[in-house]
Amino acid sequence: MEIKIAEYSGYCFGVKRALKLTMEAIEKNGNKNKKIFTIGSIIHNPGVKEELSKKGLISVNKVEEIGNKSIFIIRSHGMAPYLINKIRKEKEAEIVDTTCPFVKKVQSKAGLLSKNGYFVVIIGNKDHPEVLGIKGCILNKKYAVIESEEDAEKLRCRKKIGVVIQTTQTKEKLFVIVNKLLDKTGELLINNTICDTTGKMQLSTRKLAGEVDIMIIVGGRQSANTRHLKEISEKINESTYHIENYREVKPEWFINKKRAGISGGASTPIKDIIDVKKAIEELQYIQKNKNL
Amino acid sequence: MEIKIAEYSGYCFGVKRALKLTMEAIEKNGNKNKKIFTIGSIIHNPGVKEELSKKGLISVNKVEEIGNKSIFIIRSHGMAPYLINKIRKEKEAEIVDTTCPFVKKVQSKAGLLSKNGYFVVIIGNKDHPEVLGIKGCILNKKYAVIESEEDAEKLRCRKKIGVVIQTTQTKEKLFVIVNKLLDKTGELLINNTICDTTGKMQLSTRKLAGEVDIMIIVGGRQSANTRHLKEISEKINESTYHIENYREVKPEWFINKKRAGISGGASTPIKDIIDVKKAIEELQYIQKNKNL
Repeated sequence: MEIKIAEYSGYCFGVKRALKLTMEAIEKNGNKNKKIFTIGSIIHNPGVKEELSKKGLISVNKVEEIGNKSIFIIRSHGMAPYLINKIRKEKEAEIVDTTCPFVKKVQSKAGLLSKNGYFVVIIGNKDHPEVLGIKGCILNKKYAVIESEEDAEKLRCRKKIGVVIQTTQTKEKLFVIVNKLLDKTGELLINNTICDTTGKMQLSTRKLAGEVDIMIIVGGRQSANTRHLKEISEKINESTYHIENYREVKPEWFINKKRAGISGGASTPIKDIIDVKKAIEELQYIQKNKNL
Repeated sequence: MEIKIAEYSGYCFGVKRALKLTMEAIEKNGNKNKKIFTIGSIIHNPGVKEELSKKGLISVNKVEEIGNKSIFIIRSHGMAPYLINKIRKEKEAEIVDTTCPFVKKVQSKAGLLSKNGYFVVIIGNKDHPEVLGIKGCILNKKYAVIESEEDAEKLRCRKKIGVVIQTTQTKEKLFVIVNKLLDKTGELLINNTICDTTGKMQLSTRKLAGEVDIMIIVGGRQSANTRHLKEISEKINESTYHIENYREVKPEWFINKKRAGISGGASTPIKDIIDVKKAIEELQYIQKNKNL
């Protein structure tokens, strides 16, 4: 079996940077013995989460659980400014900000739109931490989070609508929602804040899905951008499977298939992708020996 | 045969206003005996053009042909400010401005976009007087006139693109071109300047085209909005005919048809629409008597 890996897949710039800053904070803290907290996962990948937890990173669910005078790491998805201030003041925590610079740009664009009198539409997943952080940057709470065409349809008309989009969304979603929004306002300002890498990953996954008989998408089930790669792939190739790691690979998927493709999201370590490739090769080896 | 007229058809607000201002200028001039000029037609309707010409309105093709110390009428489509100034200064003409207020809004939005650093995209017909006027309001000549998806495809990428659209274009065209422009910039500011009446006319023509066996669109062949009504109608009803007046109605169009619809553009006098209705009724009367 021929196995191909998508040209762009695995850790993006923002994820690499967040992990680097987190590792530096952990190492720098070595002697000081402060506790290091984060809310949720630094990146949406269970394997990486476990590894960082072993190194001492404590992942909690809310501000109240953060220890006093600790180190607090803002993850790559960013965070609402009022929450960061709360942690700084109430917990007297030292803040390490690993927010992806592309996410920072979305936050500042959203803030600017609301400052300039636009009703802000955030295209994205309502509960995704990146979206929660963006919401926190809008001054007057004049915003709506739009997940689908149907959401956009329900929006009432406004004089000026400004749009930002979660960095890991698809261009296709931007298109269909913009078409609906054109009916809701006379002035529509669109900031296409989908990040470059996301676009390239989507493009190379789409390309590969058309060239192979089976596609394996590797990455956390919580990872929005990995889920989008799965959606894109299965539109072109119905034999698409989303797995978190090589242990989930199933032999029956590969029956009568000649070419397999692998892609991974921005939060997927390249090692995980290589492990899946090895697992498929191993399956073939076992199969071959069985047939002898 | 049942004959229906589209709910919204015939003279729009801007056209009525332009004709009223022109008639007032002609009447007011009665004794003074100044010559009255316009470039092109006040509105795109040959019948109206002829009528105004009989009342003394002289339609010329360029500034050089305008008489000195005359009265100059800016037609409803508007005009580039530098040309108006030229006529005022070089010809010492008294200016009567009948520019449609909706067109004035497009001109000011286009000017504001260029002032704010946007590359301006004007969606419209390259040679239409409204578009020529809008172009004249853009400060630094940083603009492109886009007629089609293909035009938009060819545009090179820009940091900020601002969009205005000729008042009489269709929303469908705005949608497809906006989708292409999203690939050309990170910041896209869309002013949907299609005028309300245009939208209503298009909607009621589309509705009627679906209810009848034959559609007659009445209006000048130079009239952009009338041509768009024809395009909209023929997508739904292939028996669509665009005529300038009742004399062009052909008996053979109505063979085996039971229901006819009539619609007219913003520059079509309601009288022309009624005349077409009468012509169809007359055809039927002749046909009936033939059969007896």
